[in-house]
Amino acid sequence: MDLASVETPVGVVDLDRARENIERAIAYCRTHGIAWRPHVKTHKSLEMARLQLKLGATGLTVATAHEAYVMSQATGDLLLAHPPASAAKVDRLCALPRSVDLTVGLDSIEVLRLLARGAAAAERTFGIVVEFDAGLGRTGVTDPAEAVRVAEEAVSLPGVRFDGLMFYPGHIRIPRSRQAGRLERLSERIEAFVAALCHAGFPPRVVSGGSTPTLWDSHLLPGVTEVRSGTCIYNDRDIVGMGAAAPEHVAYTVLATVISVSVPGAAVVDAGSKALSKETLGSGAPGYGVLFDRPEVSVRAINEEHGVLDLSGTAWRPSVGDQLRLVPNHVCVSVNLQDHLWGIQGEGSAARPVRLEGRGRLRVPDWDGVRDGGLAADASEAAEATRLAASRIS
Amino acid sequence: MDLASVETPVGVVDLDRARENIERAIAYCRTHGIAWRPHVKTHKSLEMARLQLKLGATGLTVATAHEAYVMSQATGDLLLAHPPASAAKVDRLCALPRSVDLTVGLDSIEVLRLLARGAAAAERTFGIVVEFDAGLGRTGVTDPAEAVRVAEEAVSLPGVRFDGLMFYPGHIRIPRSRQAGRLERLSERIEAFVAALCHAGFPPRVVSGGSTPTLWDSHLLPGVTEVRSGTCIYNDRDIVGMGAAAPEHVAYTVLATVISVSVPGAAVVDAGSKALSKETLGSGAPGYGVLFDRPEVSVRAINEEHGVLDLSGTAWRPSVGDQLRLVPNHVCVSVNLQDHLWGIQGEGSAARPVRLEGRGRLRVPDWDGVRDGGLAADASEAAEATRLAASRIS
Repeated sequence: MDLASVETPVGVVDLDRARENIERAIAYCRTHGIAWRPHVKTHKSLEMARLQLKLGATGLTVATAHEAYVMSQATGDLLLAHPPASAAKVDRLCALPRSVDLTVGLDSIEVLRLLARGAAAAERTFGIVVEFDAGLGRTGVTDPAEAVRVAEEAVSLPGVRFDGLMFYPGHIRIPRSRQAGRLERLSERIEAFVAALCHAGFPPRVVSGGSTPTLWDSHLLPGVTEVRSGTCIYNDRDIVGMGAAAPEHVAYTVLATVISVSVPGAAVVDAGSKALSKETLGSGAPGYGVLFDRPEVSVRAINEEHGVLDLSGTAWRPSVGDQLRLVPNHVCVSVNLQDHLWGIQGEGSAARPVRLEGRGRLRVPDWDGVRDGGLAADASEAAEATRLAASRIS
Repeated sequence: MDLASVETPVGVVDLDRARENIERAIAYCRTHGIAWRPHVKTHKSLEMARLQLKLGATGLTVATAHEAYVMSQATGDLLLAHPPASAAKVDRLCALPRSVDLTVGLDSIEVLRLLARGAAAAERTFGIVVEFDAGLGRTGVTDPAEAVRVAEEAVSLPGVRFDGLMFYPGHIRIPRSRQAGRLERLSERIEAFVAALCHAGFPPRVVSGGSTPTLWDSHLLPGVTEVRSGTCIYNDRDIVGMGAAAPEHVAYTVLATVISVSVPGAAVVDAGSKALSKETLGSGAPGYGVLFDRPEVSVRAINEEHGVLDLSGTAWRPSVGDQLRLVPNHVCVSVNLQDHLWGIQGEGSAARPVRLEGRGRLRVPDWDGVRDGGLAADASEAAEATRLAASRIS
C-alpha cells in the first residue's frame, strides 16, 4: 500500500527507526549488565514485542490483563506493573497459559491477599514485587518497613512468590542537567528499601525500575536489575523535548490530511484528539504535536477530528488535500487511539499494516470466553487467546 | 451482569437518563420547529442512534467515513460534518448503500470538486452544505462571497446538490449570562450568509448549526433549520460546568477501582488517560474528572492507567478494591477509549453491554472489503457493513 492512498488520520511507524531504537536500548542495557523488560503499553503490538525479545529483551512489562493475555503469545516472562485490585482482574490473570511466569507489582496487603487467594485456588504461583514510591507520589509504599511487611505476608501465603522491588521514577522528566539531585535522592531511596528487605531476611532478587526519560541514567542507580522503559521504541515530542532522544529517533508519526485553509492563518488537518490526544506537554511548550519535517509548526488547537496548525512561525502554506505527518506529544496514547498502524521501511517505501492486538481491554464476548476457560488455563487457551486477538483485526 | 463484578475501567451508561436527555432535546426542538440531527461522535452506538431516531431525530450527523458506514444501518439521512479531503475518503462515501442520502459539509472548491468527481463516477449524488466560520476560527469560509462561489460551483457540477449552509458555534462555551453579545453577532453572521446566497439565487434549504452548549439557545438564531448537538445525550463535567445540563443529566460515567492508597493523601484508581483522557477543562477548573456521587473529589493527576484522586476537600477515604464512578471532563473522547459500555437502568440494576460499532476507523481488512465493493454499493453492501461492524464486538 502506498501511504499517499491510505485513509487518514492513521499512525505510521518507521520500522527501521523502531529497530534502531530497540538496538540502542539493548546495547546500553548490555553494557551495564541491566535487563530490559520493555513496557508494551507504547506499541500494543505482538510484532513489536517479538522484535524486542528477538533483539535481547529479557521479558515484557504489561499494564492490563488484556495486554498480559496478548503478550503471553510472545513470551512466558511477564511483569504486570499495575495492581490487580479486583476479582475480575485476578480471574483473568489466573486464566493465563500455565507456561507464563507472571510477576505482579503491588503495594498493599489487600491486593497481595486477593492475588494469592486467586492463584492458590487456580493451583498456580505468581511472583510479586513490592512497589515503592520513587518520588512521584502516585503508587508505592513510602516506608521501607511497609515493604518488609508485604514481603513477610507474601512468604507466608500460598500462590505467591516474593521476588523483590519495583519503582517508577515518573517524577524525573527533566533534562539531566536540571535534575538537581533527583537521581541521588532516588539512589538513596533504593538503597534504603533494599537494605531493609535484606536486614529482614528478604533480599530482593529483582529491583525493577526505569522509564524512558531515565533510561540512559539507569546505571547510576544502585542495584537496579532491570528497566521497563517502553516509550523509547518510538519516542515522541515530549521525549525529544527533554533530551532523552534525538529528533531522528522518532519512529512514530500520525499521517494526516489538510482539510481546510479557509480561515486566514489557519490550516486544519483531520488529526484531532481522537488521533493525537489532547495531552499537553509537561514542559509547558504549547500545542498538541508538531510537524515531523517542520518542527516549527505545532498543532495549536485541537478538537475530536480537527487539528489547527500554527502557521505563525513559517512562510510555508499547505493546500487542501496535502498529506502531513505529525509527531504527537505523547506517543503511547496516540497509538492507543489507532486501530492499526502502517509500517514503512524508509521514506517512500510501501506501507504494510502493523497490528495492535494489545489495544483495548478485551471485548465482552472475549471476556466471557476467557472467563469460561477459567481455571482450565492451558496451551489450548493460549491458542484461543491468539485467535481472539487476531480476530480483532481480521 | 452485576457491575460489581465487571472488569474496570469501563464506561457505564445510564440508559434511563440517556433516554430522558434525548426526549428533552426532542421536546425543545419540536417546540421551536427545529430539526434535531444529533452527532453520533459522542455515543458511537447503533443502539443509541436508533433510539434517537425513534424518539424524533430527523437524521444523524457523522464525522468519519466509518461512522457514516455504520450509521447507514440506522437511517438513510446522514450529514458528514467534516470535509472529505482525500480520494480514500470519497471512495468510502461512494461505497455507502445507495439508499443513503448523504449531505457533506465543506468549505472549499477543492473538496467540492473531489467529491463531485467521485460521486459522478459512482453515478450518485451527494448534497453539500457550505460551512461558514461562526467565530471559532477553525474551518468554514469567512466571507459570504466565498459561500456564493462554492454554491455556484456546486450547481455547475454533476454528482453534487447544493443544500445550504452549515456552521459550528464552538466558540460559545460559556454560561449564557456571560455570552456578551456572541449570540447576537452569530445571528448577524447567519443572516449575512443567508442573504448573500438568496441574493445570488441560491436560497439555502438547510441551515445546520448547533452544539450542546448552544442547544437551548438555538431558537434565538435566525433561520436555523436543524441542530447537530450530540454531547447532550450523555453530558459531562464540562457541559454541567457551563450550565448547559444539570448534574442529574449526566448519563455516562467511567467505572473504576481503587488500586492503591499507599501514598498519604492520595487514592489511585485504574482509570487513567486511556479511559478518561487527559483533557483539561476550558474553564480552567483543575483535574480530569470528578466522582459521580462526590463531585468535590476530582482526579488531580493522570497517567495512562492511573488516576490520582484529590482528597484534600473531603474527609472521605476510599479503600483498595472499592469501585467508584467518575464523570469525565469530555464524554466523547472517553467513550472513544472504550471497547463497549455497560448499560444500566437505574442504580443497582443489572448491566448489559452497549456496543460501540462506530468507534475506530474500520480496520485494514474491513477497509479492503469496503473498497472491493466499490461502485457496486447496494443493499448487500449495507448487510456486509452491518456484519463487519458487528464482527468488531462479537
